[in-house]
Amino acid sequence: MPEKKQIILTEVALRDGSHAIAHQYTTKQVTAIAKGLNEAGVPYIEVSHGDGLAGSSLQYGLSHTNEMELIEAAVSVCTTSNVAVLLLPGVGTVSELKQAAQLGARMARIATHVTEADISAQHITSAKEIGMEVVGFLMMAHSAPTAKLVEQAKLMESYGADVVYVVDSAGALLPHEVKDKITALRQHLSIDIGFHGHNNLSLAMANTLAAIDAGATRIDGSIRCLGAGAGNTQTEVLLAVLDRLGIYTGVDLYKMMDLAEDVIAPILTVPQEITRDNLVLGYAGVYSSFLLHAQRAAQKFGVDARDILLEIGRRKAVGGQEDMIVDVAAELAQGKETSHANR
Amino acid sequence: MPEKKQIILTEVALRDGSHAIAHQYTTKQVTAIAKGLNEAGVPYIEVSHGDGLAGSSLQYGLSHTNEMELIEAAVSVCTTSNVAVLLLPGVGTVSELKQAAQLGARMARIATHVTEADISAQHITSAKEIGMEVVGFLMMAHSAPTAKLVEQAKLMESYGADVVYVVDSAGALLPHEVKDKITALRQHLSIDIGFHGHNNLSLAMANTLAAIDAGATRIDGSIRCLGAGAGNTQTEVLLAVLDRLGIYTGVDLYKMMDLAEDVIAPILTVPQEITRDNLVLGYAGVYSSFLLHAQRAAQKFGVDARDILLEIGRRKAVGGQEDMIVDVAAELAQGKETSHANR
Repeated sequence: MPEKKQIILTEVALRDGSHAIAHQYTTKQVTAIAKGLNEAGVPYIEVSHGDGLAGSSLQYGLSHTNEMELIEAAVSVCTTSNVAVLLLPGVGTVSELKQAAQLGARMARIATHVTEADISAQHITSAKEIGMEVVGFLMMAHSAPTAKLVEQAKLMESYGADVVYVVDSAGALLPHEVKDKITALRQHLSIDIGFHGHNNLSLAMANTLAAIDAGATRIDGSIRCLGAGAGNTQTEVLLAVLDRLGIYTGVDLYKMMDLAEDVIAPILTVPQEITRDNLVLGYAGVYSSFLLHAQRAAQKFGVDARDILLEIGRRKAVGGQEDMIVDVAAELAQGKETSHANR
Repeated sequence: MPEKKQIILTEVALRDGSHAIAHQYTTKQVTAIAKGLNEAGVPYIEVSHGDGLAGSSLQYGLSHTNEMELIEAAVSVCTTSNVAVLLLPGVGTVSELKQAAQLGARMARIATHVTEADISAQHITSAKEIGMEVVGFLMMAHSAPTAKLVEQAKLMESYGADVVYVVDSAGALLPHEVKDKITALRQHLSIDIGFHGHNNLSLAMANTLAAIDAGATRIDGSIRCLGAGAGNTQTEVLLAVLDRLGIYTGVDLYKMMDLAEDVIAPILTVPQEITRDNLVLGYAGVYSSFLLHAQRAAQKFGVDARDILLEIGRRKAVGGQEDMIVDVAAELAQGKETSHANR
């Protein structure tokens, strides 16, 4: 009889879910949620500002509570679960990473844009030196060809990462693309491969199953779908599906269902549905930070914001390139006039 | 160059979505929604009580508006879309079907439990006689082995159905099961095959793609996910995904996005999220009518309602067998005591 397939889960509601509640987690909430996740047997619990350590800022959104207090609160109730932290080089520094490790965080997830793995070298090395397990987190994975993704993942492996994740930040990947990317990583790397999905195209679960099928063994979920955009792969639903598929997680399904309903749902201020805005971001494959700028430019130039975002997606803009929006809007307005004149 | 793959869409928000708003559609709402769907180019728009023609009752929920008025309202604004109606033999009769046809409904969807296709013979024949296009709608398709499903679908084909649908009423099917069922139907039938999904396991989109991949050409969706349980495959999201996959529907994505956001979302009284109850129903694969009974029995016998529902699912109970719940609860209570004593 073949050994039962097994995946290792990371719960991201206390990090990615922070976006969904405008970074307003209280120590009391984090303590209750981490306690519940620990009791259910979740192996890793990520706790950080939505944009990682030191993300609290006017630009990314101010946290209600200092994240170090939240990390400390989570660690204090975890008897078997490990607390993980996210760090985006450029937003957070090695200094915050060390502070989190001193408070008891055991895993560092170092996140870069899928084409910028080279900026993670120092952070991965430092995290390993202080004894943390290290995940390389390649964001906006849809925006690079698979060969580029493999090249960047190999960089993270060479810096010492224990795991590399394919991160579908915009919820833009299709299942066959996920399968292709995970398969390639499995072929070219010797470390574990993970997948982090978003639900903007209602494909978070499909993509997660495609990733597992292709050999990913580390999977992210957010309980009650609490994450940026349309949320992540909904953890308690994933547990039910994996149980039906005979895949082992070691996490208690009923306890997670109850935590979702009794503790998480009441915290939600906005339901985790697929709205027009979330759908457009997934369809275009762009950062959510572009949305408001595109809507403003659309109004100014008399074009559809969706057309701007689709063009921005085609040009594979990265965070910080919001200037591109006005150019695109102007070009579209020009093209629109021409096309009207030709009719 | 191969011809572009094409699927034909049926929008079910004005029928299945009726469950989500307790059958409170007004003529004004239905007119506005049908008008929007027609303008977006949706080929079929289903309009009926959630439980089909004549479903308005104390047992199934009373409609706000007589469904014949709603059908008439939808027909009055459809210039290219066809209005479809659902009929469950035993709930509705041929008389209501004729009335709907006289009002301009063009398609009859005759729905039975997956093992009870024989009760659809008269209704399918009659619908064909009055010139309607006819769909055989096999509900709770997860609860029968594929061979049984094929046998039942062949019955519907023999009665004259133009299309047979695999209907995942409880949102309980997994993608490989959908693929298996659709593939078998394609092998053994010569009519078109359709798929109707629910999102209780967050797999509506995955299952829909699996169905299309296996050869289904008729697909149901509900705009803004407005359907029973956790809702159906979300139509406007499906359109975005199919566009990315190069599959043609002829439906305008932007118009559907706008209709979802501006017209449908404000009607929703409860968000279409995957709650604990919806998840349990999908995981156990049981009718939602069992839920309340199971919760009551659980309290009485001191057992977990989820364990009752799972056992009910294993026994493949069908609507009307709610009595079974008390027996199962009593057995579980007995078993529980034994297992406690043995610890």
